[in-house]
Amino acid sequence: MPTLVLLRHGQSQWNLENRFTGWWDVGLTDQGTAEALDAGRRMAEAGLDFDIGFTSVQSRAIKTLNLALAAMDRVWIPVIKNWHLNERHYGGLTGLNKADTAAKYGEEQVKLWRRSFDVPPPPMEPGSPFDLSTDRRYEGVAVPATESLKDTIARVLPYFEAEIAPQLKAGKRVIIAAHGNSLRALVKHLSGLSDEAIIHEEIPTGQPMVYDLADDLSAIARRYI
Amino acid sequence: MPTLVLLRHGQSQWNLENRFTGWWDVGLTDQGTAEALDAGRRMAEAGLDFDIGFTSVQSRAIKTLNLALAAMDRVWIPVIKNWHLNERHYGGLTGLNKADTAAKYGEEQVKLWRRSFDVPPPPMEPGSPFDLSTDRRYEGVAVPATESLKDTIARVLPYFEAEIAPQLKAGKRVIIAAHGNSLRALVKHLSGLSDEAIIHEEIPTGQPMVYDLADDLSAIARRYI
Repeated sequence: MPTLVLLRHGQSQWNLENRFTGWWDVGLTDQGTAEALDAGRRMAEAGLDFDIGFTSVQSRAIKTLNLALAAMDRVWIPVIKNWHLNERHYGGLTGLNKADTAAKYGEEQVKLWRRSFDVPPPPMEPGSPFDLSTDRRYEGVAVPATESLKDTIARVLPYFEAEIAPQLKAGKRVIIAAHGNSLRALVKHLSGLSDEAIIHEEIPTGQPMVYDLADDLSAIARRYI
Repeated sequence: MPTLVLLRHGQSQWNLENRFTGWWDVGLTDQGTAEALDAGRRMAEAGLDFDIGFTSVQSRAIKTLNLALAAMDRVWIPVIKNWHLNERHYGGLTGLNKADTAAKYGEEQVKLWRRSFDVPPPPMEPGSPFDLSTDRRYEGVAVPATESLKDTIARVLPYFEAEIAPQLKAGKRVIIAAHGNSLRALVKHLSGLSDEAIIHEEIPTGQPMVYDLADDLSAIARRYI
């Protein structure tokens, strides 16, 4: 049975500050570091093991994976970092805390952005201090100006199918350390959730979600450990 | 000009205990962790930057690279882990401290093993607690029973030529985090040192060695930062 574990990064500095982060690269808090190490210990205790890891090009996810693998004595497995697993790009909301956003755009509008499947936030303004379109880690990548959850899914799933699914089908045990919305994309796909259901799926930080998959990679069950 | 930095892992638990380590996988001490972070800070201050990292499949080198890259805000660069960059395999000496070894084999014999270019230590005995030949990280690898420095060079250099040199020639800035003897292999090759000279080359833990290379990858100069 193919083994797949999804792991959202531990608490980041901007999770703590309740700010929209998106593609902005923030570090883990001490609590986030502890969550990552604890996730690794729990996976090892549950008898989980991995042949390969995938993560985004965002430090909070990479560090979470490195710490969890260190706690499992598995830092030596190959780890692939790719932007397709990045968090949803929050556009013009990036950097705002959730109260500021409500004050600026109104509670109703914010609720719409947060709860809708296909309505993106306003695009990031040119010259924004959070603009990463010229960051060299994204050389050759069309950095989006904003993304809905639907947009996020549209870049996560082809990557999953092209790069990760073949590893699972070849019998590799895979861990993916990523973000709330890039993992929602995978959960929606694997568990066949509706557009409406996935919006309400909250994936907690630092909690390994274990998928039991059939050989065709359809989900038999999933659980947190 | 191609950029290449060689970085020996920070102090390991068995560096501290003065034990032959070889392929055995030991962690960093707190001092080793601090050395790795400090190496990253110094590289950033020196204006160094990297496009790709290479390391062994041994935790002390991988962790050193991860920590140094974290201190440079570069955990997102691709990192390739490969056993060809492992430390020299110390055979039957693995796990012994240097005083025990002298008591067991005699000072003269130990000096010969440590100072010779092509005399390997006695092979690891079958059933040794340090035998890694069935460790799954070496699946498909003919794990040596012992290695001379010459043997180590014979596996490091083809890997360098096949996987690392093409990156340098393509203009990528490369960091290699590895081990005293796998780095000696590279220094001997790049700097054209004799068999005798390389034996006396001591590479300190956690000190980035910066190579200025010509386009054909011959060394123009090297320095520690």
